[in-house]
Amino acid sequence: EKRSDHQQKVKNTYIRISLPAVCFVWQIAMVLLFGIFIRYNEEADAHWVEHKQQHNLTDIDNDFYFRYPSFQDVHVMIFVGFGFLMTFLKRYSFGGVGFNFLIAAFGLQWALLMQGWFHSLDQDTGKIYIGIENLINADFCVAGCLIAYGALLGKVSPVQLMVVTLFGITLYAVEEYIILNLLHCRDAGGSMVIHCFGGYYGLAISWVLYRPNLHQSKHNEGSVYHSDVFAMIGTLFLWMFWPSFNSAITNHGDGQHRAVINTYIALAASVVTAVAISSMFHSKGKLDMVHIQNATLAGGVAMGTSAEFMISPYGALIVGFFMGIISTFGYVIVTPFLAKSLKLQDTCGVHNLHAVPGMLGGFIAAIVAAFASDSVYSHQGLINTFDLTGEYASRTMSTQGGYQAAGTCVAMAFGLIGGAIVGLILKLPIWGDPADDNCFDDEAYWEVRACFRPLDVALAL
Amino acid sequence: EKRSDHQQKVKNTYIRISLPAVCFVWQIAMVLLFGIFIRYNEEADAHWVEHKQQHNLTDIDNDFYFRYPSFQDVHVMIFVGFGFLMTFLKRYSFGGVGFNFLIAAFGLQWALLMQGWFHSLDQDTGKIYIGIENLINADFCVAGCLIAYGALLGKVSPVQLMVVTLFGITLYAVEEYIILNLLHCRDAGGSMVIHCFGGYYGLAISWVLYRPNLHQSKHNEGSVYHSDVFAMIGTLFLWMFWPSFNSAITNHGDGQHRAVINTYIALAASVVTAVAISSMFHSKGKLDMVHIQNATLAGGVAMGTSAEFMISPYGALIVGFFMGIISTFGYVIVTPFLAKSLKLQDTCGVHNLHAVPGMLGGFIAAIVAAFASDSVYSHQGLINTFDLTGEYASRTMSTQGGYQAAGTCVAMAFGLIGGAIVGLILKLPIWGDPADDNCFDDEAYWEVRACFRPLDVALAL
Amino acid sequence: EKRSDHQQKVKNTYIRISLPAVCFVWQIAMVLLFGIFIRYNEEADAHWVEHKQQHNLTDIDNDFYFRYPSFQDVHVMIFVGFGFLMTFLKRYSFGGVGFNFLIAAFGLQWALLMQGWFHSLDQDTGKIYIGIENLINADFCVAGCLIAYGALLGKVSPVQLMVVTLFGITLYAVEEYIILNLLHCRDAGGSMVIHCFGGYYGLAISWVLYRPNLHQSKHNEGSVYHSDVFAMIGTLFLWMFWPSFNSAITNHGDGQHRAVINTYIALAASVVTAVAISSMFHSKGKLDMVHIQNATLAGGVAMGTSAEFMISPYGALIVGFFMGIISTFGYVIVTPFLAKSLKLQDTCGVHNLHAVPGMLGGFIAAIVAAFASDSVYSHQGLINTFDLTGEYASRTMSTQGGYQAAGTCVAMAFGLIGGAIVGLILKLPIWGDPADDNCFDDEAYWEVRACFRPLDVALAL
Repeated sequence: EKRSDHQQKVKNTYIRISLPAVCFVWQIAMVLLFGIFIRYNEEADAHWVEHKQQHNLTDIDNDFYFRYPSFQDVHVMIFVGFGFLMTFLKRYSFGGVGFNFLIAAFGLQWALLMQGWFHSLDQDTGKIYIGIENLINADFCVAGCLIAYGALLGKVSPVQLMVVTLFGITLYAVEEYIILNLLHCRDAGGSMVIHCFGGYYGLAISWVLYRPNLHQSKHNEGSVYHSDVFAMIGTLFLWMFWPSFNSAITNHGDGQHRAVINTYIALAASVVTAVAISSMFHSKGKLDMVHIQNATLAGGVAMGTSAEFMISPYGALIVGFFMGIISTFGYVIVTPFLAKSLKLQDTCGVHNLHAVPGMLGGFIAAIVAAFASDSVYSHQGLINTFDLTGEYASRTMSTQGGYQAAGTCVAMAFGLIGGAIVGLILKLPIWGDPADDNCFDDEAYWEVRACFRPLDVALAL
Repeated sequence: EKRSDHQQKVKNTYIRISLPAVCFVWQIAMVLLFGIFIRYNEEADAHWVEHKQQHNLTDIDNDFYFRYPSFQDVHVMIFVGFGFLMTFLKRYSFGGVGFNFLIAAFGLQWALLMQGWFHSLDQDTGKIYIGIENLINADFCVAGCLIAYGALLGKVSPVQLMVVTLFGITLYAVEEYIILNLLHCRDAGGSMVIHCFGGYYGLAISWVLYRPNLHQSKHNEGSVYHSDVFAMIGTLFLWMFWPSFNSAITNHGDGQHRAVINTYIALAASVVTAVAISSMFHSKGKLDMVHIQNATLAGGVAMGTSAEFMISPYGALIVGFFMGIISTFGYVIVTPFLAKSLKLQDTCGVHNLHAVPGMLGGFIAAIVAAFASDSVYSHQGLINTFDLTGEYASRTMSTQGGYQAAGTCVAMAFGLIGGAIVGLILKLPIWGDPADDNCFDDEAYWEVRACFRPLDVALAL
Repeated sequence: EKRSDHQQKVKNTYIRISLPAVCFVWQIAMVLLFGIFIRYNEEADAHWVEHKQQHNLTDIDNDFYFRYPSFQDVHVMIFVGFGFLMTFLKRYSFGGVGFNFLIAAFGLQWALLMQGWFHSLDQDTGKIYIGIENLINADFCVAGCLIAYGALLGKVSPVQLMVVTLFGITLYAVEEYIILNLLHCRDAGGSMVIHCFGGYYGLAISWVLYRPNLHQSKHNEGSVYHSDVFAMIGTLFLWMFWPSFNSAITNHGDGQHRAVINTYIALAASVVTAVAISSMFHSKGKLDMVHIQNATLAGGVAMGTSAEFMISPYGALIVGFFMGIISTFGYVIVTPFLAKSLKLQDTCGVHNLHAVPGMLGGFIAAIVAAFASDSVYSHQGLINTFDLTGEYASRTMSTQGGYQAAGTCVAMAFGLIGGAIVGLILKLPIWGDPADDNCFDDEAYWEVRACFRPLDVALAL
């Protein structure tokens, strides 16, 4: 107890040097690396006018018009969706939406580089040529780190979050390369590479950073009435735009069309079953805002991989049906259990919304892929959907299913191992993280107007 | 008075059995019916790659790219627009946005089936083939029920709302079939089938469910400062995306283009005249948030049918001009009058925002249609706009105008009669609705954090 | 002091006659002018079906499909972005979002006319033919006035705001004509015509309307916890959709594609450097919400002109990098200095977010244009990007750069001189503006529910 007391006193949220230093140094590094590597691709370059003449294209053939509406929706999910979902804490709304903004803005730059080196590097020129699809993928890559932030919310400093993001993006780019390129899996909406990876990454970090005296911040945890309404803004923008998320980088035409339908349907079922389970677990049948804010989204997570497959509308409905149940169960039963038994402090419950539904989504897609057939997809449709060309032309669908399952395991392993290592780095006493009795409190990192306190008194008493 | 007291005591908001039961049974029914009936249409099916080759199409010809941006905007209107518009009550924001979420998510599934049977059923295979247009129509269908919810807000249980939705979707599909198919009316943005029907449906239910002692919940009714700001989120997303709503399923090309322009213009005028009337009715010229939140939208409602017609920009401006006036008058004069004289308790004033502007929009469109001519539309343009093909090729425009007017009456009749019947069903004492002194209070159906009460005390005193 | 006391007493926020009168008279004028001048263009007219056959077009060639998604994003920026950004004041959120709504809705009508007369008037028919691009431009035009509102927030009456808008739109249309047509500058995202003009327009008005006793309203100024979260809704929607803003009216194909990439990148860098500077200026390194809400957007403002140029991704990153720094410095150092030395009361700090970054964006684009070359753009690409056709075919790039710089000066001059004149008009004692001790208070112009005061007491004590 004494030692812990001592530890508290050493902790110090002074970040006036570390935060500007990290921001400036890394941002300058981005400028230099962008200068060396990043260029417009032929669809965004002013040479397009000549390019389209040479290839007999018209402006509408520019990939921009196939993907831009989805891109903007994904962008809203990243900044308003994830950002406002994390405003639910009564005294940490600034940190929820504000740090989300910071790390997403930094992360997408680093993601353009990391994903560029792995996927868009031209071997001849040594340059990365970017277009709209790269922007979408950068946003996706950032999503993994924002999911991890959900497990850490209120317990880390912004400097630590920058570190989480730097390593998170790096790990993401590597696991994505292994899963999509080496294993040749499909994962358009990222059940594996985004949600499963991001969820376990955050959980592993949180586990390493376990705070035995976090109960000292209990007066700060929890929501108030209006903070729960703010969080619903996040929930709804995530929920509404998830069809865009899962279809943003699928094939033109039927691929995007089908991914939208499947995601739309799965999400609808999740809402209904999440409400049912939430009501069942309360003595008078009352609903819990935590479940409505989170478990309603589980169907979208789990459809991330199979949204572009011919899972059929009722297949999507069944996935959403069970995900709403499993996720709500998670919030009611599993999170408290993990907190007690595994010493896992998961602020937003990313275990129930991302890690488990992402993992299950990966395995569901493995099964759906294994049973895919020419008769259901058409011969050319099967080739298109699973990109069975070149060296993969002879891969059987059951083999593909096996690789999809293996990909899910890779994502989980990267999350858990990478997260454990990053957690250890974050234990260094240089990052300005808050003391155990100072968590979930914006006063640590934000100038909060004087008039805040009295409201707080009114709210807390 | 004693009887009423007695009645109060029997009322009981215990829904731990009924709500999960309704959710599970109906959701399982959805799974089964989707399994039997619903399939992807040729634009969303993996066979698309073969289909487009056979029909000499390219990916951009997929209807997805003509409608997807509008679909996502409509989706935002349904969940954030309607949802946040109903957060204005100081103690019922969870119920406003949360129950809206639940019934919309359930309703869109049932709508895919009901509308599918009437409009997209393939007689040969017995299957419903869905694509992006079906998703938009399902959202539209749900909008009718959400409008009805506006009249009932705070006075019904979520189980009752599920019943309202089940019957509402069913009634909608039937009246829509009569109006669009049998009468061959045009109603792209649904002044008739959505707003007029939904408004009168909700009013009729509310009238049957009249609560003589609702004044006992007066301390819960009304807004607070921040709940009014939350409601503005709903208002603005409805207002901004209404051009997408009215153009989402109009003809490709000029149809969508013109519907956007007309709606954009009409809505702008509504704002200006709503402000003017709101100011005129206050002794010092102050504005009332209720009018700004609602009457500003009336131009969009009234343009629902004629948005795709050649009503001309100034025609749209005139419609918006008068709708802003009529709707604000409604809030100031008519709603209080209806409450006293007709015992009609209309929480959100859907009478002024949906029922009347929807009805007027139907009749305005009838007049605009009756005066449509080859010279204004071009010969082919007239045929395209009113779909005067096949058996309707010889229909004159004045006849078309007559049918449009008849369609409006059908929508109103379905709303009033259907609502009265559903209201009677909801009077059964099994639905867990709140007592008269327990309305407009989230505590009835939501786990509200302990710290809510003190804030509430601070607010109410 | 006595004179000032006297002045206070004469002031009177009674607007029951003036506000409805202005709204009705101007709205009726709009109806008449629309009736005389405004018609659908050939892409929105029902004749499109014949037009496309004659010109061998298909529906997807309709400009609607190239611009509609961007239009809706811009629309969100105007109404939710600007509107919610101005809800940050603890007692002026209604006025922030509500008056923004009013003047934008009026302004876009007047803008359709003013811009139409200058740009879309058919000399033969005397009509203005409008389509989706006109709607975007009307929203742009309105943005200039909303920026000006930011400097005046809380200190003017809605009647004054209508006057600001009427003259602002008029001035905008003239300076835009000079800059885009006479000087033949490029300014797709409006660093010059929107931000530089709007910023200086608002500052000049505010300077003329200087209130020496504004400190008497100090108790009303400033934010509370939740009003700062509301403002983040505005910030994020502006930030996320800025790529759509800067690309909405650029060339089809590479023009739109490139403008999106440049804006996305510049904005990301602004966030990181704004955070760094904000932290550096606080004794413990804490962040200030004012900077996060505003300075993070400066990169988007400054990329307004050069977004469509081949500034290259690292060029965009550098612009964003410095704009985040300059804008945050502005909030910390320059705004307080201007308030003291220049008697410039700039409520939202539009000097730091719009005026200076807009001006710098104009000059940056002048430099980028001056160095543009065939090798970087391709010959045809250069002609396309700078529209060097007809009489401008022989203009050299360094000449173009000079004109771009001149255009920036024109925008600034129009803002400063026009604003000074409008400010003098607003000093007439007929507009119902609030007294110095009554600013920043919604009670002056809004019916605020009784329960507001106690919360306020709780907040203020």
